[in-house]
Amino acid sequence: MIGIGVIGYGYWGPNLVRNLAETPDAKVIAVSDLSQERLAQAESRHPTICATTDCRDLFTNPAIDAIVVATPVSTHYELAMQALQSGKHVLVEKPLTSTLDQGLRLLDEARRRNLVLMVDHTFIYTGAVRKIREIVQSGALGPIYYYDSVRINLGLFQRDINVLWDLAVHDLAIMDYVLDARPHAVSATGIAHINENEDVAYLTCLMEDRTIAHIHVSWLAPVKVRRTLIGGGQQMIVYDDLEPSEKVKVYDRGVTVSESESDNVYQMLVGYRTGDMWAPKLSTTEALQNEARHFVQCVAQNQQPDTDGDAGLRVVRILEAADLSLKQKGLPIELNWERMPV
Amino acid sequence: MIGIGVIGYGYWGPNLVRNLAETPDAKVIAVSDLSQERLAQAESRHPTICATTDCRDLFTNPAIDAIVVATPVSTHYELAMQALQSGKHVLVEKPLTSTLDQGLRLLDEARRRNLVLMVDHTFIYTGAVRKIREIVQSGALGPIYYYDSVRINLGLFQRDINVLWDLAVHDLAIMDYVLDARPHAVSATGIAHINENEDVAYLTCLMEDRTIAHIHVSWLAPVKVRRTLIGGGQQMIVYDDLEPSEKVKVYDRGVTVSESESDNVYQMLVGYRTGDMWAPKLSTTEALQNEARHFVQCVAQNQQPDTDGDAGLRVVRILEAADLSLKQKGLPIELNWERMPV
Amino acid sequence: MIGIGVIGYGYWGPNLVRNLAETPDAKVIAVSDLSQERLAQAESRHPTICATTDCRDLFTNPAIDAIVVATPVSTHYELAMQALQSGKHVLVEKPLTSTLDQGLRLLDEARRRNLVLMVDHTFIYTGAVRKIREIVQSGALGPIYYYDSVRINLGLFQRDINVLWDLAVHDLAIMDYVLDARPHAVSATGIAHINENEDVAYLTCLMEDRTIAHIHVSWLAPVKVRRTLIGGGQQMIVYDDLEPSEKVKVYDRGVTVSESESDNVYQMLVGYRTGDMWAPKLSTTEALQNEARHFVQCVAQNQQPDTDGDAGLRVVRILEAADLSLKQKGLPIELNWERMPV
Amino acid sequence: MIGIGVIGYGYWGPNLVRNLAETPDAKVIAVSDLSQERLAQAESRHPTICATTDCRDLFTNPAIDAIVVATPVSTHYELAMQALQSGKHVLVEKPLTSTLDQGLRLLDEARRRNLVLMVDHTFIYTGAVRKIREIVQSGALGPIYYYDSVRINLGLFQRDINVLWDLAVHDLAIMDYVLDARPHAVSATGIAHINENEDVAYLTCLMEDRTIAHIHVSWLAPVKVRRTLIGGGQQMIVYDDLEPSEKVKVYDRGVTVSESESDNVYQMLVGYRTGDMWAPKLSTTEALQNEARHFVQCVAQNQQPDTDGDAGLRVVRILEAADLSLKQKGLPIELNWERMPV
Repeated sequence: MIGIGVIGYGYWGPNLVRNLAETPDAKVIAVSDLSQERLAQAESRHPTICATTDCRDLFTNPAIDAIVVATPVSTHYELAMQALQSGKHVLVEKPLTSTLDQGLRLLDEARRRNLVLMVDHTFIYTGAVRKIREIVQSGALGPIYYYDSVRINLGLFQRDINVLWDLAVHDLAIMDYVLDARPHAVSATGIAHINENEDVAYLTCLMEDRTIAHIHVSWLAPVKVRRTLIGGGQQMIVYDDLEPSEKVKVYDRGVTVSESESDNVYQMLVGYRTGDMWAPKLSTTEALQNEARHFVQCVAQNQQPDTDGDAGLRVVRILEAADLSLKQKGLPIELNWERMPV
Repeated sequence: MIGIGVIGYGYWGPNLVRNLAETPDAKVIAVSDLSQERLAQAESRHPTICATTDCRDLFTNPAIDAIVVATPVSTHYELAMQALQSGKHVLVEKPLTSTLDQGLRLLDEARRRNLVLMVDHTFIYTGAVRKIREIVQSGALGPIYYYDSVRINLGLFQRDINVLWDLAVHDLAIMDYVLDARPHAVSATGIAHINENEDVAYLTCLMEDRTIAHIHVSWLAPVKVRRTLIGGGQQMIVYDDLEPSEKVKVYDRGVTVSESESDNVYQMLVGYRTGDMWAPKLSTTEALQNEARHFVQCVAQNQQPDTDGDAGLRVVRILEAADLSLKQKGLPIELNWERMPV
Repeated sequence: MIGIGVIGYGYWGPNLVRNLAETPDAKVIAVSDLSQERLAQAESRHPTICATTDCRDLFTNPAIDAIVVATPVSTHYELAMQALQSGKHVLVEKPLTSTLDQGLRLLDEARRRNLVLMVDHTFIYTGAVRKIREIVQSGALGPIYYYDSVRINLGLFQRDINVLWDLAVHDLAIMDYVLDARPHAVSATGIAHINENEDVAYLTCLMEDRTIAHIHVSWLAPVKVRRTLIGGGQQMIVYDDLEPSEKVKVYDRGVTVSESESDNVYQMLVGYRTGDMWAPKLSTTEALQNEARHFVQCVAQNQQPDTDGDAGLRVVRILEAADLSLKQKGLPIELNWERMPV
Repeated sequence: MIGIGVIGYGYWGPNLVRNLAETPDAKVIAVSDLSQERLAQAESRHPTICATTDCRDLFTNPAIDAIVVATPVSTHYELAMQALQSGKHVLVEKPLTSTLDQGLRLLDEARRRNLVLMVDHTFIYTGAVRKIREIVQSGALGPIYYYDSVRINLGLFQRDINVLWDLAVHDLAIMDYVLDARPHAVSATGIAHINENEDVAYLTCLMEDRTIAHIHVSWLAPVKVRRTLIGGGQQMIVYDDLEPSEKVKVYDRGVTVSESESDNVYQMLVGYRTGDMWAPKLSTTEALQNEARHFVQCVAQNQQPDTDGDAGLRVVRILEAADLSLKQKGLPIELNWERMPV
């Protein structure tokens, strides 16, 4: 039985607690939050849980094996580090930290103490993304041409981060998992309209092998869109997360270049190789449930999580470079993964 | 009665000829093309038209008042210049020219000879874009936050230009007409997968007053998308050109920032001011018909076209800067409109 | 403070209890159900509620002013009657009863005892249906030509009723509320494929003034559809309950008959008068919350509910006639509302 | 080379002429119409065609082997009969005739003279319907539960027929081709709002083996819908003719009845067996082109067309019964196919 403590019962915390509470071989022992009101909520929903305003009570509680950090990003490093130093395994809400340096320290600490450090890249635990990885890794798409994602709506503004750190983090995590992509350069543009944080932003990642990735995120769109295109030489995927049932569609479409005789001075025709489209059946288990079980299992058996500290760090690294570019109107920032500590 | 000659009867030429042939006070006198096959087509469809492989026959034909250039972009400058120097009014297919310098020379020539120089920015003549300009210019949207457009499908590859010059030109023309926007900096990224021309590209334009514009174009998408979002402080527009009837939707949605007491450490809540949505009735006259009539009228009355050489030049200027950025992974390119000759 | 008892904690009961529990001036005192398991659920979610397997405990409990019946249809009459006879106000899940005769007796009992009898026609309490009634009653649509509804999906089979009594009841309730419609004849067809109850059915209602209503319901559709068209001489409404935001669209479309000269032997052209489309903002309060508050208020102030016993009875009356027609392959069944007791 | 004469150059005639003109081994020799204006149109488009206001010129023209009748339904019988009696093969626009009796006489005449009699059931020649028949005939759907079709929009009113004869004819033809269905009873309801012909109508067909078919047609809908559901025990098809590319979707969905323990008093749960969905690639050749070639081939080789007189007659037979039911508010009309002459 793994004892769990959760720090932060705001927007996301309640979902984590609910799912962890229903996870076999795990028990949510304590929840901490600065707001008495939210703590009262937690208690009414989970009478057996001990609620406190002082997270240190969790660090010192011997019944607690693992700590979940569900607080604003700016506090992730401090809280996760204290948890590790208290000998607790840690699951941190996305993004892992506010800076690459902070992330490196967390990884180092976790390694030295042989503790599990996992980041809450929720989408990795959805049936849709699992299926997409399966298809991409099978090679069915052929060479990957592009990854293009739009993640916009009239959304919750974050106080301490911009829209890239809030929304693009999802796509960077998915790309990392699906494509094993390591961009060698990023270029980002965006504007802040409402407060000091960019609320509309665009991020391009350039990979080897002529693969380009682009992410459009916004808190200011009149309509909600959650659509990702992954284009390959043989097949192409459309992943629409708002579709009730067919979230993933695989198009047997490719391009075959041909010279059109009659038009030869004018253009080269792309032969549309359009075959069937199919939408594979997807597992419908709630992502957070899968993630909770995975975390508990990794702690119990001391395994490496699918979304480990390294994965969280790779995403933070790209976000940090993206911010640099953002401040300079899209100036390309190079990334050298060989020279990266991890 | 305006006599018209058309150079180029390939992909777009037939549409221009058909519409010009049905325009009052105008007569298509001759068509030239390098392909006998296409000329035969033109003759069978328009028995009264004289067809020739030598476009000079059009320049020297005194019955011809105006020349329409519907050839590959690389030939626009040469042909349009000869037409002007032959004293003919000119309508050039988009984009106006391959370079800013060529465009400047055409404008100069047209001015000196007091001839009409018009560019075929077709979308400006659609009911949808006319209505959007009307709404935006009325100020109903409030301050403009962003212009975001996606124009992708499995498309015709151009031999002599990349996807920005083929597709983004439409959005740049619409932006120029709807927002009177003059970007002070552009950043573009893209990749060429099939031939040497970029087939997937992303272009960001930064305007004054915190307005950002972004255009995503691709010849390699499995699905066709033609959607533009224009976000303002008061209202937001969604323009979906593939919608059979309601192409333009106006959302009475704005953002009202407020502090949520219970969540104050966590986030600032954006109050969704969501009112009605309405889709205004749009004129359904074919854009090319409006454009043909407009061109003929401008020639007959020596007026300045809505899409005159300046408009064409402004778009080419942005495209040229975009190409510069494209070759340098998104390096921002500054544009100084004061120092611009036009 | 109104004391409430709820009979039945199966599929719908939990939603009713949750909403009643959050209703001001009301208190859910007891819940009864035949299943210990479900009662345990109720207790864990609502610790203060007294749970019992014997509904008679509710009838005899003096602290209970009103009883909610959320059990299979076949038991509605028996339980509601006992509740009334125990002097309790009653809210019955839809449909009110299994037969017209049962319904008449309930109404009679409620009247004699001056107790509130309300039926759970949930959709009447949605922002969408409220808005539709407002528009229709304003006369904006002009003369009503038709009401056409499709309510299908791969759905929960009911054991004791067919798909008309399960799903068409919603549309009949909406029609009754929006159009004040009293069909003078009904014709229904359908088939039972899985068990003895029809799982696919079609119901036509013929009203005065050339208004026709048609309802298509199915438990066997591969896709979920919840769409209603209301056509008038001036405007037409499309109500799509699955739309996340714009559920109600009003089309300024009418028909203007005209003789086309050139086609006069062939056809009469319908002039499409197509003006704007607009989607009014809708209240997003949960329907069940509105309904719970309305019920409590009607009990407290002894008012007539919007969905009173009469409304429930009118719907049952049509359903009873529909079943008759269903068994005879669509044989039209006449309804005489004058001769109807209510 | 088959010589063809076309009677009627109104709404549909021009499409037939255009496609026949492009059909190998066929030549459109003459077109007749009552309107000089339309004849002028025909001549301008097809200079080689001889145009006449007197259709008898076609009957007597020895160069004409086959006659296409594209006139109002009320004239089909008279013209087709004269054509047959003149020894010409005949293609009649849908529906074949206005009455069953007329149809029987035409079939009889064609048989006696060994001439081809074909009806213009256009949809049978689309890639979508061909593919659907292929799937259904393969048995992949399992037992057929239902055929449900909606064919509505703000449409062309016909002067001499109601909406069933104008639109439902398409679905009856598709059903006949795809399901080989022979309804033993039909029930129809509808209303005429604009003129004396029903403009909104609903038709139920009851087949053997618990298969039910339903067709909803309307000339008075604010939105255009062309969707057909075909439900089977194993799989289900959604055919949306307005989809640009994926018109046919096959859902691997079935129903597996199971008793839910905890809910056993309440309901029987339908186990959603939801597997993959796939959209097969469809031939995109224009239906009318396929049809034209098929007709010419049948004439040349004296074959039986896929949509022969019998097919046309079966559809007329159902429509005649539907009209009977329509006038009696849905009274079921029995059909005895054994006793049917054909």
